[in-house]
Amino acid sequence: MNDLSHASAGQLSFAEHKKYTTDLQNSKASAFLIPENLIEALPKNSSYIVCENVSISMAYATKLFAPRKIDFKAPDPLRGEGTYIDERANIEDGVIIGKNSTIMAGVYLGSHVFIGDNTTIYPNAVIYRDCVIGNDCIIHGGTVVGADGFGFSHTAMGEHIKIYQNGNVVIEDDVEIGANCAIDRAVFGSTVIKKGVKLDNFIHIGHNCEIGEYSLFVAQSGVGGSTKLGRNCVVSGQSAFTDHLDIAPFSTFTARSGITKSIKEPKGVWSGYPLMPHKEWMKLQSKIAKLIKE
Amino acid sequence: MNDLSHASAGQLSFAEHKKYTTDLQNSKASAFLIPENLIEALPKNSSYIVCENVSISMAYATKLFAPRKIDFKAPDPLRGEGTYIDERANIEDGVIIGKNSTIMAGVYLGSHVFIGDNTTIYPNAVIYRDCVIGNDCIIHGGTVVGADGFGFSHTAMGEHIKIYQNGNVVIEDDVEIGANCAIDRAVFGSTVIKKGVKLDNFIHIGHNCEIGEYSLFVAQSGVGGSTKLGRNCVVSGQSAFTDHLDIAPFSTFTARSGITKSIKEPKGVWSGYPLMPHKEWMKLQSKIAKLIKE
Amino acid sequence: MNDLSHASAGQLSFAEHKKYTTDLQNSKASAFLIPENLIEALPKNSSYIVCENVSISMAYATKLFAPRKIDFKAPDPLRGEGTYIDERANIEDGVIIGKNSTIMAGVYLGSHVFIGDNTTIYPNAVIYRDCVIGNDCIIHGGTVVGADGFGFSHTAMGEHIKIYQNGNVVIEDDVEIGANCAIDRAVFGSTVIKKGVKLDNFIHIGHNCEIGEYSLFVAQSGVGGSTKLGRNCVVSGQSAFTDHLDIAPFSTFTARSGITKSIKEPKGVWSGYPLMPHKEWMKLQSKIAKLIKE
Repeated sequence: MNDLSHASAGQLSFAEHKKYTTDLQNSKASAFLIPENLIEALPKNSSYIVCENVSISMAYATKLFAPRKIDFKAPDPLRGEGTYIDERANIEDGVIIGKNSTIMAGVYLGSHVFIGDNTTIYPNAVIYRDCVIGNDCIIHGGTVVGADGFGFSHTAMGEHIKIYQNGNVVIEDDVEIGANCAIDRAVFGSTVIKKGVKLDNFIHIGHNCEIGEYSLFVAQSGVGGSTKLGRNCVVSGQSAFTDHLDIAPFSTFTARSGITKSIKEPKGVWSGYPLMPHKEWMKLQSKIAKLIKE
Repeated sequence: MNDLSHASAGQLSFAEHKKYTTDLQNSKASAFLIPENLIEALPKNSSYIVCENVSISMAYATKLFAPRKIDFKAPDPLRGEGTYIDERANIEDGVIIGKNSTIMAGVYLGSHVFIGDNTTIYPNAVIYRDCVIGNDCIIHGGTVVGADGFGFSHTAMGEHIKIYQNGNVVIEDDVEIGANCAIDRAVFGSTVIKKGVKLDNFIHIGHNCEIGEYSLFVAQSGVGGSTKLGRNCVVSGQSAFTDHLDIAPFSTFTARSGITKSIKEPKGVWSGYPLMPHKEWMKLQSKIAKLIKE
Repeated sequence: MNDLSHASAGQLSFAEHKKYTTDLQNSKASAFLIPENLIEALPKNSSYIVCENVSISMAYATKLFAPRKIDFKAPDPLRGEGTYIDERANIEDGVIIGKNSTIMAGVYLGSHVFIGDNTTIYPNAVIYRDCVIGNDCIIHGGTVVGADGFGFSHTAMGEHIKIYQNGNVVIEDDVEIGANCAIDRAVFGSTVIKKGVKLDNFIHIGHNCEIGEYSLFVAQSGVGGSTKLGRNCVVSGQSAFTDHLDIAPFSTFTARSGITKSIKEPKGVWSGYPLMPHKEWMKLQSKIAKLIKE
């Protein structure tokens, strides 16, 4: 199961609104969940199920594609030369770890986790099944990589139907993640933390985000689902991004920025909530100072 | 030990100010910690201790009622059919788990924890003693349920005397809690997360809160002690409630709302800090945009 | 290795800018990393290495002084009378624990950790190597003490070179730390949480901070590196301090304060971001209320 643009032959996809007509026409999926008014837009020879509420049907369908939480049939863990796995770490089957890595006590590695060379995972960090961590990474204690993204479909009665999060997290090389962070797994595909990124403590990265190379996040910041940051962004403390944004590379955000719109121009310095250029924010502050004295 | 309105016969309660006179007169507790000026308001035949500083005496008294951290005399864990308890989970005595539930490696379940059917607790989550989790729940890695609420009595010298948190947490059915959340146990009684609630990552719920059915919390939001939310509230990212508020059902709060007063009117949409109706906040933002250009 | 003012004979230190000339002249370190223009300011008989980029050379040098993550040659743990160490806790070598303390299941104590008397560490908390925790402390589940501070040196190409954090954390007596907090270890020397401090859940304390006696932090607040708070400060929820500040004792910060400058006057009440006296903030709010109605 996958979204319209990423699905390949043999996969199930879905389209909810007319605005996805073009994506639907071009999709390579073999079967679709669609509303009645999209039947004509289907690629030739597609299978489909007409749904009254595509979002809710999609949510229920994700559950059918969810893997078991633990895979007892997977092969025993493989490890490279010089790698130390503490015997008090909890490793599921099918894990592969490269050379000279260190897995400390109380760490959990789910089924089929892959970890590269020279990587250290500190005590009690949790890596959910199928996640991938590169070379030369450091993941600190209490951090959770690969928990379910926050995705629900909502019924008319106000109940929330879980959309099973069947993707994973990919952390590239030379990434450091602080203590007690949470990087959610993708609903389909991967949440990606690119090469050289450094995250402070308590960073929240939503499902399907992509954090550009060498970006920095200061403590207690968060990124909503599917938001993409370009390379070398700097995000100061307690900042937050809403979901589905596209942020230009080399953007800098001062403390407690609230970013709700995409940014096209690279190298900007931004502040405030609602967000504005840092210079305007400085101007606003001096106007506010005057306002108080009036 | 319990507060004036919840205490039953045989329990110890306390009253600190004259404003609690009516509650004191109606209380069913058998004994009271009170200041001298409340003796006349006591129910007939009550036992009492006159305290110079009721708050501090109360704090010290809570310690006497604190259960042991681990109860070695409790019965062995009971589990229903189809339930998988990973042998690397750490389970104290007296735990009861229903059918078809999954307790993964590194999970801690304190003494007398009760867990229902079809519930999954992901690795390294911690459930403190006496907490109750319903059916069809999902609790993600690193989340802590039932740690002590933040309650202290303060001496004239500026020291803080711990008020032992002797209540518990009750999580009803169909609740999902993200990674690295913290739901504090009640000082007396229960902190309650009602049916169908969904919490994203890093949600803080203070002691004695009650979160209404089907409410949603987006990442990094928090609720101060004893605040009650009605059903189907939507709380966007990085929002926070102070303590002792009463929030009407179907209230929506946009990102980074700061809620310091109770809300009586249901179905409102709110923004900002200080909080205001979302429409006013939008108006304010356009005024601020003008102010910058002036 | 240590900074100019704390280094003693036999240690390596560093100076990056001319503004550190006096500190350099007075330093007791035996060897220095310096730029060429500081050679003349060196104390007599010092060894030195001239660096093109002192910050990056310093970052690389810290790695040479990093201890092993686990010290297999340390002595077996020592414990005082009445101390309970759960056999499912993960204790490295060289740990010393006082009398009547409780170390619960899933707790990690790194090499050479010292814990005093009557202290309780709740399940799955993580204490990294070399950290010190006093008497009568309570540390709740999921909290991480001693993870690396967020320190990097940046290359001209935008890469980040890790500054190894070779200091520790010292938590004095009678401190309570809530669930899922993160107190980072110092780069050199110690991050210090002083006597009687109480931290709610999700508190972030950066490297080399010093939190004054009996200070209180409400949930989801954070302190940037090297900031020092005087005694009895009160920090309300979701507040944050930038780095390298000096905060006068008895300062109070209302919810979501953003503190970016040092505070010299004790006993102030502060609000807002940018920060202002609470009275001014109240005035500003009434002006804003008027502005909306205009």
